[in-house]
Amino acid sequence: MDLKDIFQDNYLNKEVTLKGWIKNHRRQKEFGFIDFSDGTCFKSIQLVYDNSLPNFEEISHLLVGSAIKIQGTVIESQGNQDIEIKITSLEVLVKSSEDNPIQPKRHTREFLREVSYLRPRTNLFNAVFRVRSTVAGAIHKYFQEKGYVYVHSPILTANDGEGAGEMFKVTTFDLANVPKTEDGNIDYKQDFFGQKVGLTVTGQLQAEAYALAYKKVYTFGPTFRAEVSHTKNHASEFWMIEPEIAFCDLEGLMDIEEDLLKYLIKYTLQNCPEEMELFNKFVEPGIIERLKKVLDTKAVRITHAEAIKILKESGQKFEFEPKDGEDIATEHEKYLTEEYFKAPVFVKDWPKEIKAFYMRLNDDQKTVAAVDLLVPGSGELMGGSQREERLAVLQKKMQELGVPEKGLEWYLDLRRFGGGLSSGFGMGFERLIIYLTGVDNIRDVIPFPRTPNSCDF
Amino acid sequence: MDLKDIFQDNYLNKEVTLKGWIKNHRRQKEFGFIDFSDGTCFKSIQLVYDNSLPNFEEISHLLVGSAIKIQGTVIESQGNQDIEIKITSLEVLVKSSEDNPIQPKRHTREFLREVSYLRPRTNLFNAVFRVRSTVAGAIHKYFQEKGYVYVHSPILTANDGEGAGEMFKVTTFDLANVPKTEDGNIDYKQDFFGQKVGLTVTGQLQAEAYALAYKKVYTFGPTFRAEVSHTKNHASEFWMIEPEIAFCDLEGLMDIEEDLLKYLIKYTLQNCPEEMELFNKFVEPGIIERLKKVLDTKAVRITHAEAIKILKESGQKFEFEPKDGEDIATEHEKYLTEEYFKAPVFVKDWPKEIKAFYMRLNDDQKTVAAVDLLVPGSGELMGGSQREERLAVLQKKMQELGVPEKGLEWYLDLRRFGGGLSSGFGMGFERLIIYLTGVDNIRDVIPFPRTPNSCDF
Repeated sequence: MDLKDIFQDNYLNKEVTLKGWIKNHRRQKEFGFIDFSDGTCFKSIQLVYDNSLPNFEEISHLLVGSAIKIQGTVIESQGNQDIEIKITSLEVLVKSSEDNPIQPKRHTREFLREVSYLRPRTNLFNAVFRVRSTVAGAIHKYFQEKGYVYVHSPILTANDGEGAGEMFKVTTFDLANVPKTEDGNIDYKQDFFGQKVGLTVTGQLQAEAYALAYKKVYTFGPTFRAEVSHTKNHASEFWMIEPEIAFCDLEGLMDIEEDLLKYLIKYTLQNCPEEMELFNKFVEPGIIERLKKVLDTKAVRITHAEAIKILKESGQKFEFEPKDGEDIATEHEKYLTEEYFKAPVFVKDWPKEIKAFYMRLNDDQKTVAAVDLLVPGSGELMGGSQREERLAVLQKKMQELGVPEKGLEWYLDLRRFGGGLSSGFGMGFERLIIYLTGVDNIRDVIPFPRTPNSCDF
Repeated sequence: MDLKDIFQDNYLNKEVTLKGWIKNHRRQKEFGFIDFSDGTCFKSIQLVYDNSLPNFEEISHLLVGSAIKIQGTVIESQGNQDIEIKITSLEVLVKSSEDNPIQPKRHTREFLREVSYLRPRTNLFNAVFRVRSTVAGAIHKYFQEKGYVYVHSPILTANDGEGAGEMFKVTTFDLANVPKTEDGNIDYKQDFFGQKVGLTVTGQLQAEAYALAYKKVYTFGPTFRAEVSHTKNHASEFWMIEPEIAFCDLEGLMDIEEDLLKYLIKYTLQNCPEEMELFNKFVEPGIIERLKKVLDTKAVRITHAEAIKILKESGQKFEFEPKDGEDIATEHEKYLTEEYFKAPVFVKDWPKEIKAFYMRLNDDQKTVAAVDLLVPGSGELMGGSQREERLAVLQKKMQELGVPEKGLEWYLDLRRFGGGLSSGFGMGFERLIIYLTGVDNIRDVIPFPRTPNSCDF
């Protein structure tokens, strides 16, 4: 039996048996109260016991964290909650000790990062990681029900990831004694894969190959960046969702992105009401309102040139001056989504020089069919493009941007054999969770975060 | 519009517009037939055209693989299928070339591995990877609906994975110039994470930490083995599912494993009938019958000692003689599941010496509460155990098996602070797909397989 069942169904005046943990314990001379949870729902329940129990003495000394098995009767509560449980027996399963770091008091998030294996036992992190799980489930549900094929793109790769970021090297070499060729270079032929291999920074190119077989596919897996960055937005290991849709243009892609975003917001509000209430109260006041507003708002669609024009004419004093042909800074994103449009904003048709080689060249020969989705409160949430299906155009672009064909022959083959006609986008899963919970440090939305000099547990 | 819709709903005599690819093309002087698919379902449809079309000449030269957009009317078929489409217009989107390796003929699986980015365009692999996606979706559906929390266990880890297998090293060192300490050792303090880090071989230990917060959790992510093994069962990168349930004993664990197995079989048969029909016809005749039989059979539960006794008394000539206290070989698994019981078999209570340190010591002090699930046709499909919750017993076991506490202090902490009471199992996802499809080489059930000396695309 789960505690969740007791809250969902009518168990009033019924006998129940539960196993779970002590969250808080107030004992008096002749009776005591235990705040009890079994982890199956966000809420805990109050257990009441008195000295009629044979092991009253043992019970009254139980510390926070201890695992117990209880039997009792569900009764109407005298306190804040509707119901509580009057215990008729309590068996101790595993006692916790005095030095349990998790106590019923406020812990700083910095402290809890140092015991990340214990932090889901706290209210805040219990809520964060349940939402993380629920949203991951919702992503699979969304794509599976719409007939997308889930592709496990490879983690180990010899592609160097189209410059999306620094890669970790993967090897089985004895690092104290790396084999060299006669001319003094590293002899990768002797390594496990017979070539230089690293951890993927994106599964997009492989997803494209599958979109050309199934029309609609998505990836959802870990990706890696070896950049030494200590901001609250950067982790070395994070999860990405990369849908790819054949025969879809940029307008169609924006429709899908907006539909997915609204689906995930709605799903989270519906399925995690207690967790969202906690974030709304203690993490980011107003977050529920902010998310609900997105549901009722149609996202704006503007070109990069239009965005720059709006920024230039805004009369705002920006740290970085908005310029034609250049990237849009965080402060610009903020102005567009929070001040000017007060809505999610798609910025499309980016200058070709600052975007990746595989993005489709527009007829103006200057911009590519790329689109970023900016959302109020979080900035860029999704980034996508229509892919260049014209082999000659693609090859010319690779040359211009200095992307060697070697290693990407297979990607060119996709065009040679009737393909390349797809659009797709990437969404950082943690960025989404930050957006949905208001918990604004990536280290606090990953169960065991990996950052420079930090790879614990 | 998807081709899938046309097969599912009644489109007879209706106008339709589709985009997809040419799978086969037979042209005659005045008309032609195109076998057409858009990838949204396993079946393809026949397109019929004639020389009344203005671009008849262009169409009649189209090669297999070409991407086209067609309009036409759904009509009753003269051929094998119920319906076909009489084309009223055809637009060429991307032409394929003569040297397209994927042609409407039989290709060997070995050849197709060399073009793994194209092989989902063939019938067999289209079926395999759609089943892979469907089953992955079913796993999430199963656990999410039962209230399990999905945990992303870390891929990068400093734990050395309880000896489950050889680990890949992950580094940002310049391999030509690895920094050394004064006494000549590798100076891992200068590496990205400030310590020696590798790719995970299991997410179990981290899943345990989360089971002690949520009661029921599961992982589903990639794991890695750096073993140089060239068998058809071994890949260097594969996906694992590792559920972990607090307050669950070994009997409860077996209930969950059996329920999951039957759920996945039923789900696959129901949701991929055409794909299963293909496997049944061309890959493993009788596989549907074999899987259905499992649904109607209660799995057997025996101890390791009982299994050895049965094997010893079998009168069979085994290559490896079954021995008390030793592992069970593939031929033994085969005999137990296919000859003796003709059913899935749980083998539990294994000799403690040959199992991992975290498995709970039974009262006999000789065996541990571990269980392997063996299935007819595939051998071991799941491996699990009840975890040792008694701190002193766990520490003694680690000492006996030579597992250092350093690096695992946090795992011991889980016991110190009221935990350790859980059971869990691991299931190799590819092994499951092999079991469900009959496609018996792991390289053929992973989109882009990674094996020694092979890391392409």
